Amino acid sequence: MTDEPEPLAVICVSGGMDSAVVAALAAENHRLAFLHANYGQRTENRELHAFHQLADHYGVRLRLVVDFPALRQIGGSSLTDDTIPVREGAPVAGAIPTSYVPFRNAHLLAAATSWAEVVGAGSVHVGAVGEDSSGYPDCRPEFYRAFEEVIRLGTRPETRIAIVTPVIGLSKAEIVRQGMTHGVPFALTWSCYQSDDVACGACESCALRLRGFARAGILDPIPYRTKTKA
Amino acid sequence: MTDEPEPLAVICVSGGMDSAVVAALAAENHRLAFLHANYGQRTENRELHAFHQLADHYGVRLRLVVDFPALRQIGGSSLTDDTIPVREGAPVAGAIPTSYVPFRNAHLLAAATSWAEVVGAGSVHVGAVGEDSSGYPDCRPEFYRAFEEVIRLGTRPETRIAIVTPVIGLSKAEIVRQGMTHGVPFALTWSCYQSDDVACGACESCALRLRGFARAGILDPIPYRTKTKA
Repeated sequence: MTDEPEPLAVICVSGGMDSAVVAALAAENHRLAFLHANYGQRTENRELHAFHQLADHYGVRLRLVVDFPALRQIGGSSLTDDTIPVREGAPVAGAIPTSYVPFRNAHLLAAATSWAEVVGAGSVHVGAVGEDSSGYPDCRPEFYRAFEEVIRLGTRPETRIAIVTPVIGLSKAEIVRQGMTHGVPFALTWSCYQSDDVACGACESCALRLRGFARAGILDPIPYRTKTKA
Repeated sequence: MTDEPEPLAVICVSGGMDSAVVAALAAENHRLAFLHANYGQRTENRELHAFHQLADHYGVRLRLVVDFPALRQIGGSSLTDDTIPVREGAPVAGAIPTSYVPFRNAHLLAAATSWAEVVGAGSVHVGAVGEDSSGYPDCRPEFYRAFEEVIRLGTRPETRIAIVTPVIGLSKAEIVRQGMTHGVPFALTWSCYQSDDVACGACESCALRLRGFARAGILDPIPYRTKTKA
């Protein structure tokens, strides 16, 4: 038997805690290629910094930073349109938050798939989280299953690319615990939607992160300006 | 009964003949929004010029030109990577041409869908052509049907966006005839992959266009440097 090289995986790394956990899980049996998307979000530079710190941590040389100027031009979200305020507190169940960037994850998966096809990666790993978290329609498991079919039909016949969403069914607290088990450097991650020096502690994303760490009984290592009550 | 305004449709207009025919068909019972994509293709500026000329012709004010720098960065196609030569002559049946831009149409549909969701368009119209033409996997009807499911799952629950591909089953000759019937200004369109002043007449795209006009028995109104035998 020869030693097969580990398969190559494209990991979509936003710089946040969820995709950091996904990267840690994939690192155990894949060679990694890290993809980061800029789409005009308010904290783009801070997220990119976290991306490179995580890539350094995992020794990833194959990095691609892509820009989606279309999402900025199209707007329609508090993350990409300065006239729409960022909501504070955890999202309301059943409602689509103002931070929903219309169909953003399809742009991300399109770029990840094109890259995976060219570099020969067999899977694209995404840190989407379903129910407990965003309430974004493009974070649901069904969306990813349907997109896998689009990949099968829209790429070369010999191309095989699976979409892997290992934290999609987990609560934020479970993601924190998984991350601790797998040695995720949470201090290097960034989640805040509003601020890029000290996390605001009040936006939707901070609220979800703080609630996750609190419920897991783990101290979040990043500093906050204020902390919303979990 | 009140006069309902005609529904709004996003038309993906490359500047080529197929999408011009799609625009002409849609113009008969829709208000139009024209979307054009730059992705680092060799003849980007010439195509953009054709796009604006077509938009002027149809009196379209709602125009969006989006850039996909990711496709340029990723490469893997003779259209976006200068080290891969553009093939000449009509494509070989069953083979994926070197001009295939990996998963490009997924990027296009993602942008069209995000825009349609924000402006309230109920349909996205694409000039993809199947069998008789490119041989690109992301031009097959099944790809578009699968993508419609991704749109249904990945957008707001109230969003309804259909993908319309009216020329996908037609031969190039049939597209030319449809265009003549519906008054398409073919003189304003651009198809050449290689040249941006006078069409080369030799690349895959010119070869397909010339063959289509020849088989339809119609004179192509644009000038060519040379003409490959149809």
